[in-house]
Amino acid sequence: MSIITQSGAFGSALLDFCAYSGIGVAKFISIGNRIDVNEIELLEYLDSDPQTRAIGMYLESTADGKKFMEVVKKIKKPLVVFKAGKTKKGTEAVASHTGALAGEYEIYKAAFKQANIIEAQSVEDLLDFTNILSKQPTLNSRKIAIITDGGGFGIAAADAAIQSGLELPEPSQNLATKIKQFLPSYASIKNPIDLTGDATSERYANVLETVLSSNEYSGVLIIALLQISTLDESIVSVIESLKKYGKPIAVCMAGGAWTHERAVKLEASGIPVFPTPERAARALSVLYRKS
Amino acid sequence: MSIITQSGAFGSALLDFCAYSGIGVAKFISIGNRIDVNEIELLEYLDSDPQTRAIGMYLESTADGKKFMEVVKKIKKPLVVFKAGKTKKGTEAVASHTGALAGEYEIYKAAFKQANIIEAQSVEDLLDFTNILSKQPTLNSRKIAIITDGGGFGIAAADAAIQSGLELPEPSQNLATKIKQFLPSYASIKNPIDLTGDATSERYANVLETVLSSNEYSGVLIIALLQISTLDESIVSVIESLKKYGKPIAVCMAGGAWTHERAVKLEASGIPVFPTPERAARALSVLYRKS
Repeated sequence: MSIITQSGAFGSALLDFCAYSGIGVAKFISIGNRIDVNEIELLEYLDSDPQTRAIGMYLESTADGKKFMEVVKKIKKPLVVFKAGKTKKGTEAVASHTGALAGEYEIYKAAFKQANIIEAQSVEDLLDFTNILSKQPTLNSRKIAIITDGGGFGIAAADAAIQSGLELPEPSQNLATKIKQFLPSYASIKNPIDLTGDATSERYANVLETVLSSNEYSGVLIIALLQISTLDESIVSVIESLKKYGKPIAVCMAGGAWTHERAVKLEASGIPVFPTPERAARALSVLYRKS
Repeated sequence: MSIITQSGAFGSALLDFCAYSGIGVAKFISIGNRIDVNEIELLEYLDSDPQTRAIGMYLESTADGKKFMEVVKKIKKPLVVFKAGKTKKGTEAVASHTGALAGEYEIYKAAFKQANIIEAQSVEDLLDFTNILSKQPTLNSRKIAIITDGGGFGIAAADAAIQSGLELPEPSQNLATKIKQFLPSYASIKNPIDLTGDATSERYANVLETVLSSNEYSGVLIIALLQISTLDESIVSVIESLKKYGKPIAVCMAGGAWTHERAVKLEASGIPVFPTPERAARALSVLYRKS
């Protein structure tokens, strides 16, 4: 992904976090108060940059509203914008910062919608959305499966997926029968599919391969809480190997240092990892909205 | 803080994260499907537990609605509840998980409001809110100051603070004059107060001491992006020493391993640290709502 930012410190903090998390950054451009180059020229440049697959932008104001709209409607790569200065106080702070007139947020919001720009409501959204868009293919339908080893995280992911406009159909009887052979009798084979607290990497592999090779789901949200004693190191390569299906994958992992190290490996291999079920679900939904 | 959870994996992941982040946990109780002890008895117990200052709960359903309301109205400690099963799909997943009837989310929501329970809308909220409530005093008014070394994060924090119901009055002329002597001429002394990208620990100390010893603000949101070269290790002890003012403090730090280590030190000393400006602002606002 590439980043254009009107705040240097914002950008440095994000870069530092990306390096720490295994998230690849193609181009990083801090433009300050745009004495020379502006964000519109940079958008055109990044759209033709072969290293850039998605663009994230921290924006206080645009240099030229009309030209901005012309360019963003023309560019082919996904663009995620975080607009700073949403409230009166925020707008005043923008004036103190880069000296720019931030303009009415509502106008920006409407313009983003019109131009099919993905608006990030928070710093987390900006990072999560740009990251997943740079790594994962388009979600061809709203239908996803949630596969989890933790009931609670599965439910939280289900709520967030539905709230983000995704759909969670249950597997057909045929598919459920196939999945059932890999699971203990007490496991729930609805959606979320609960692999339960004694899940192994092999169980993940079997169920995920079955789900992804069916035509019932366009993408999967994988929750892998590594605290359970049956789940070993090999979960990383199991998830990596799913890229062959060409369908969007978002992973949720939460915990401490052990989890962080595994998440970094997955990120570096092109699979986005999110620390909460809500963030994974929201990010996955953006892959559909952009299509 | 203490945690009651109806999902074991949810709890283990949270515990792992807390240990990694320097967040202290007093009691952690995973109650599953409540064959014996239920969440109502545990709330009464934790309310009288001297080690517990705030209670966080992952709830799928309550064992007894009437009794639950009686008890939560009676307990004195702040209670944050994350209700799983907000959508039809989520409710079905609850039934598969603990076998409980999750009930209408809208009824729970109204009950939480009536009983002055703080509702967490996400896993992040549950952690952030319970953490800050366990560590920081009540915010006596909505008036806070944002002190930052990064313009962009300051603006994002200002927007989020306003959206969370906080107020950002500018310092009086008298206070502004005092602050001005510690800052370069180009720094903005409104609110956010921008210490700029060459801020030192000494500059933070001087401005924070001045702001906190005035009677113009009930709390501060400190943004300390450690990527800037002028800011050294001593920022941690500068922030720790502010506890003497007895006013709420929320810190935002974002970045990689270096930042993580400093954040852990602050957490362990009783100062909550959040990775984004929005999360710091939302958490700080909860200290007012509870009062």
